[in-house]
Amino acid sequence: MRTGIWLVGARGSVATTAMLGAAAVGSGLVPPIGCVSTRPDFASVALAGFDELVFGGHELVDTSLLKRAEQLVHARVVPPGLPALVESDLRAADEEIRLSPMATAGDQRSAIGDVLADLEDFRRRLELDTVVVVNVSSTEAPTPYGLPQHASLQALLRALDEGTAALPDSSMYAYAALSADCPYVDFTPSTGARLPALAELAAERRLPYAGHDGKTGETLVKSVLAPMFARRALRPLSWSGTNLLGGGDGATLAEPDRADSKIRSKRRMLAEILDHETHDAVHIHNVPDLGDWKTAWDHIMFEGFLGVRMTMQFTWQGCDSALAAPLVLDLARFVAAAHRAGRHGPLTDLAFFFKDPLGTREHGLDRQYERLVRWAHGLGGEGA
Amino acid sequence: MRTGIWLVGARGSVATTAMLGAAAVGSGLVPPIGCVSTRPDFASVALAGFDELVFGGHELVDTSLLKRAEQLVHARVVPPGLPALVESDLRAADEEIRLSPMATAGDQRSAIGDVLADLEDFRRRLELDTVVVVNVSSTEAPTPYGLPQHASLQALLRALDEGTAALPDSSMYAYAALSADCPYVDFTPSTGARLPALAELAAERRLPYAGHDGKTGETLVKSVLAPMFARRALRPLSWSGTNLLGGGDGATLAEPDRADSKIRSKRRMLAEILDHETHDAVHIHNVPDLGDWKTAWDHIMFEGFLGVRMTMQFTWQGCDSALAAPLVLDLARFVAAAHRAGRHGPLTDLAFFFKDPLGTREHGLDRQYERLVRWAHGLGGEGA
Amino acid sequence: MRTGIWLVGARGSVATTAMLGAAAVGSGLVPPIGCVSTRPDFASVALAGFDELVFGGHELVDTSLLKRAEQLVHARVVPPGLPALVESDLRAADEEIRLSPMATAGDQRSAIGDVLADLEDFRRRLELDTVVVVNVSSTEAPTPYGLPQHASLQALLRALDEGTAALPDSSMYAYAALSADCPYVDFTPSTGARLPALAELAAERRLPYAGHDGKTGETLVKSVLAPMFARRALRPLSWSGTNLLGGGDGATLAEPDRADSKIRSKRRMLAEILDHETHDAVHIHNVPDLGDWKTAWDHIMFEGFLGVRMTMQFTWQGCDSALAAPLVLDLARFVAAAHRAGRHGPLTDLAFFFKDPLGTREHGLDRQYERLVRWAHGLGGEGA
Amino acid sequence: MRTGIWLVGARGSVATTAMLGAAAVGSGLVPPIGCVSTRPDFASVALAGFDELVFGGHELVDTSLLKRAEQLVHARVVPPGLPALVESDLRAADEEIRLSPMATAGDQRSAIGDVLADLEDFRRRLELDTVVVVNVSSTEAPTPYGLPQHASLQALLRALDEGTAALPDSSMYAYAALSADCPYVDFTPSTGARLPALAELAAERRLPYAGHDGKTGETLVKSVLAPMFARRALRPLSWSGTNLLGGGDGATLAEPDRADSKIRSKRRMLAEILDHETHDAVHIHNVPDLGDWKTAWDHIMFEGFLGVRMTMQFTWQGCDSALAAPLVLDLARFVAAAHRAGRHGPLTDLAFFFKDPLGTREHGLDRQYERLVRWAHGLGGEGA
Repeated sequence: MRTGIWLVGARGSVATTAMLGAAAVGSGLVPPIGCVSTRPDFASVALAGFDELVFGGHELVDTSLLKRAEQLVHARVVPPGLPALVESDLRAADEEIRLSPMATAGDQRSAIGDVLADLEDFRRRLELDTVVVVNVSSTEAPTPYGLPQHASLQALLRALDEGTAALPDSSMYAYAALSADCPYVDFTPSTGARLPALAELAAERRLPYAGHDGKTGETLVKSVLAPMFARRALRPLSWSGTNLLGGGDGATLAEPDRADSKIRSKRRMLAEILDHETHDAVHIHNVPDLGDWKTAWDHIMFEGFLGVRMTMQFTWQGCDSALAAPLVLDLARFVAAAHRAGRHGPLTDLAFFFKDPLGTREHGLDRQYERLVRWAHGLGGEGA
Repeated sequence: MRTGIWLVGARGSVATTAMLGAAAVGSGLVPPIGCVSTRPDFASVALAGFDELVFGGHELVDTSLLKRAEQLVHARVVPPGLPALVESDLRAADEEIRLSPMATAGDQRSAIGDVLADLEDFRRRLELDTVVVVNVSSTEAPTPYGLPQHASLQALLRALDEGTAALPDSSMYAYAALSADCPYVDFTPSTGARLPALAELAAERRLPYAGHDGKTGETLVKSVLAPMFARRALRPLSWSGTNLLGGGDGATLAEPDRADSKIRSKRRMLAEILDHETHDAVHIHNVPDLGDWKTAWDHIMFEGFLGVRMTMQFTWQGCDSALAAPLVLDLARFVAAAHRAGRHGPLTDLAFFFKDPLGTREHGLDRQYERLVRWAHGLGGEGA
Repeated sequence: MRTGIWLVGARGSVATTAMLGAAAVGSGLVPPIGCVSTRPDFASVALAGFDELVFGGHELVDTSLLKRAEQLVHARVVPPGLPALVESDLRAADEEIRLSPMATAGDQRSAIGDVLADLEDFRRRLELDTVVVVNVSSTEAPTPYGLPQHASLQALLRALDEGTAALPDSSMYAYAALSADCPYVDFTPSTGARLPALAELAAERRLPYAGHDGKTGETLVKSVLAPMFARRALRPLSWSGTNLLGGGDGATLAEPDRADSKIRSKRRMLAEILDHETHDAVHIHNVPDLGDWKTAWDHIMFEGFLGVRMTMQFTWQGCDSALAAPLVLDLARFVAAAHRAGRHGPLTDLAFFFKDPLGTREHGLDRQYERLVRWAHGLGGEGA
Repeated sequence: MRTGIWLVGARGSVATTAMLGAAAVGSGLVPPIGCVSTRPDFASVALAGFDELVFGGHELVDTSLLKRAEQLVHARVVPPGLPALVESDLRAADEEIRLSPMATAGDQRSAIGDVLADLEDFRRRLELDTVVVVNVSSTEAPTPYGLPQHASLQALLRALDEGTAALPDSSMYAYAALSADCPYVDFTPSTGARLPALAELAAERRLPYAGHDGKTGETLVKSVLAPMFARRALRPLSWSGTNLLGGGDGATLAEPDRADSKIRSKRRMLAEILDHETHDAVHIHNVPDLGDWKTAWDHIMFEGFLGVRMTMQFTWQGCDSALAAPLVLDLARFVAAAHRAGRHGPLTDLAFFFKDPLGTREHGLDRQYERLVRWAHGLGGEGA
């Protein structure tokens, strides 16, 4: 069950942490803390072992993974000394990272073709059972909804022929992945496979895909607190979230249109879980010195018996890459297993992992978890 | 379905808020915010209407309920103007509050007899379908575990005859309630029905009972956050809770042995939900000026991927009486329905309401809620 | 020493609280908590007594002060029962509130003339020693800096004649106040007297004026924390402030240009106090249900010995009107005393009260306080 | 001006950070962030350079400083790579650390004699201008107040002769230091020089001394917030502080009598700064996993105009050693300069540095700072 994970944004903090961590867990150097798929609930599910994961990916920059890992040591994401212990794994992954064809000019059709060729080469050369493509690159600006060229596979093909497809990068990767028979996961809020044309392609190819936007911090907490208020019949009147982000993420999301895309996926939840109107606001602010660390402060004013107004606040100080990386590994393991089990279409049962899950309105973490467990058991298999 | 609610501690803040609130909700003056039993999930369960609830109780002090309600206006628990609108209901309840026999000297057997007589008189005179006794009085010091006179009903009867029963007040009330064929609920951490002798009595009488310690604030939040960490395979290393309490509660719990009883019931949860050792500490401090308001601050340090240590903090600023009162009404409605449906013994399916639920180790709020819904539907009934 | 206080925005929350509070303090019903001018440090300064303050003002709405006061009871700004006790004072003030001439069309010169006439009538009819005009109305959008018609009194007069003065409302009030020989205080970030033409007018008339923007919450705390870091040689790398505001203020400041004006005055401080660059951000968000209450959350990441990064956070939950009103009274008392003592020009020694103090770069609260004490003692006088 | 710093507790985290940091600052590797004495306000004061500081000390354990420094890298107190750059300095200091004579049995007089001999040897052999002894060892249990043998130098000498002196360790070090003509600084809440007999000895020897208990975190913040409330005439009703500590400190202070000593010095402040009674509580809890990091949460409920109750909370997440170490260096530099300038007795003008300053009731940070600046300028000197 040698399983390929192809990371779009392969030298970013999340990707580097995921590759380094998979090597460290796979060789028994550290326990798999933060990896949901290793919980006893999934013990009977046939998932690829951490030592069976093989990494490759696309990138725009060429800093070596070892150097990126050392930077993450300084950023307090990775413990001192660990990169040296998995140096050979990092070097091997380095060999499998290709320059992103998006970087070089050329039309979309040829860029897609280049990605597809890289994927097929990776799978064949390394003799992989399956290759899951996971997008962990920077958040894109949102794509206008309902463009005619995205409405069907036929329309998209025609537009590509005419050079007017205007696919965002994430969707080009999704297109190429599906064309190469690779399942696709979008860990970001970018468009990815979320276009009617690509849903059609996935259906035709009988491939599974999943997304969007890994649920790593503030939204994770909201996904348990909102059901708590609802079940207690308490009414949040306002829920104000402030996110301080550093690193590349902070800078990217300081551009209003990209933040919009993130904020929209963060806000969907309350409306689904609570059965009344709430003043729901999410703000994202760039604080460069925070680096890979993220601080969220949420202020919730809620109404109780006889209209009494009470307040809850929380502060979450998390290391984003450390929170995201194990989920990337979980997703790749689950999606590869789904692929092997013949599942296709949007994997709505993976909602547990996402801020804005595909094809479901279930945002409560507990129900998402139970769905995940049930679904995983349905995949069959006699254990990893 | 005229249902009696007999409150032990009937002029306390929780009891006053419950009676005032039941009147206000029952007459349509305010919506039933905070009342779990009014959620759509329970729409088909046959529960007594708020206007069918009839109140009485025991107390040590004799301030009128109207005056207590005005004090709660100043304490920002009750909105200005509301007490006047339900004045007749408060006067009616005032008429049904008796001086606690515990206040006057005399042996335990005769005090129990007096309580029993008050309960039977209340039920008969007001023609009530059932009377649920709910303990909302101050937290007692814990009772030593395993005393021989508490070990069986026979031993207890003998000890009562000999004047050596040494039952805490809460257990005397429980004894009297069960003897009068009334279900008993302990909303505090006090001993109440939690003695083998009383379990035997409840079994013999085929009566339901429930407890302990209403889950209103910090523990409520922990009961959703702890499962969140567990499901995400994140490891809380330390969970430090600080509770600032005012009012009578603050003073009572400033006495270490009573705080112990509270703290013990607050701490049970993490050990059950998390599958590893955590440095789990709960502190209670008295801050008289907080009055009925309570502030909890929890600091959680947790370990994630590759051992990275992250932090979550929350502050809960709640009005304790406003949080407790609707749960008291919910419990009375559910327990009365259970009584009518012939349920008896410890109602483990009411774990949702308690910090330290009787007869179950399930502390996660979501599972407790699903159990509650299933159980309530099993009671039958065609709606309130 | 009967002293007039003319409030621009006389039925707003701050004004209503100030008038109601002055009456309550003046008649000994409540202690002057929050009134700086009553501290022992000012015991020897000749200030008007609270019972010598006489109120009037301009407004756009006509809700009675009594009704406004009852609204403030519901908003938890004013204790229940208090408005009734000072009803006659509120009625008397009601009599002295005039419809703002800004509400009715007409050119600026005639509006200014109307304000001036109202002021002179108020002073003469009520036989007041002096009348201090205090602007507590909504924050305006900022005025473009350096317009030619604002550059000198002569230019302004000419522009007024030509109907092209384009003074913002706050400056029209300032102009009218100075023309009527009344000192002027700007408690908001609006332009007010902060134009070269009006500085010239004040100098000519030998009148004192003060501003801008009362320092009531987050900025107050910053004005002691920033010097703390500086004196300890610790380096804040980022200081991120989030302000949740309700009420009219929240809505006004949700308009970006007005928020700008507020944010600019909030940000000036760090640059002055710290001797290095800091990522300094202030955000204002509208949360309507907060009403008169304001919650600020500040997150400060600072660097210590050997570059270690540490964090401080604070949450301030304040009632804005209750914080502002006593300062309005303090300012009126100090400025009236300054007027009597013949002081004129910008009162830089009142920096203690303002986010963006006129004519000084001293932002540290402790130094501002010492200046205030020294200055007040210089006014002479044998005590109130 | 080669100046000796003799650290009691020389291999503890504070001492190790101080020595490593002095070497790093002295050789220009890092800027002196957190060192108050390097602020421009002190530029004209003649203080020993960081490269003129020479370290020695007493210890009970023998882990090498280099190893201790590496442990501090893992604890995120010291940046990776720095210990290697100052290895020779650490080795040199290692050579000057002696086993504490307190560790070996024997009477107090002989232990004091051994300390004195070590100090004289250190000063002579290394040709030091002066040697400042600084106590940075674990907090002791408080010494009973007013014992007859501590009442005068004569009484103490007699008790030492009789073997009944019962000096705590910190006071034995203070005695030895003063006997060896070394100024003494107590950075902990331990007794140290705070006995009448030792004050007499210092006076006789004309030596300066300073203390107690370095003000590094929560108390530092309180020393600016309390004056803020006072100057604004706002009344804190309750001030509840919770301190989560790890490391040795957490364990030591989990012993109630030692915590008492700390808590007492933390609480003195509010009573001095505020002019009314406040419910003032400080709690210390041990959270082993926090290591060298400390989290304080303070909750302040204060009363404003018309009795409105408002709340301020702050969370301080500091690295204790990184906060303390530069102050140890500052104190040594200032005290050495004072010694050279002939100052003697308790240095009350160093109150800025201490939670419980000797000989003064001034607890406000701003006034303490101004006193420090004035005092330092009075020492004379033409700059470091």
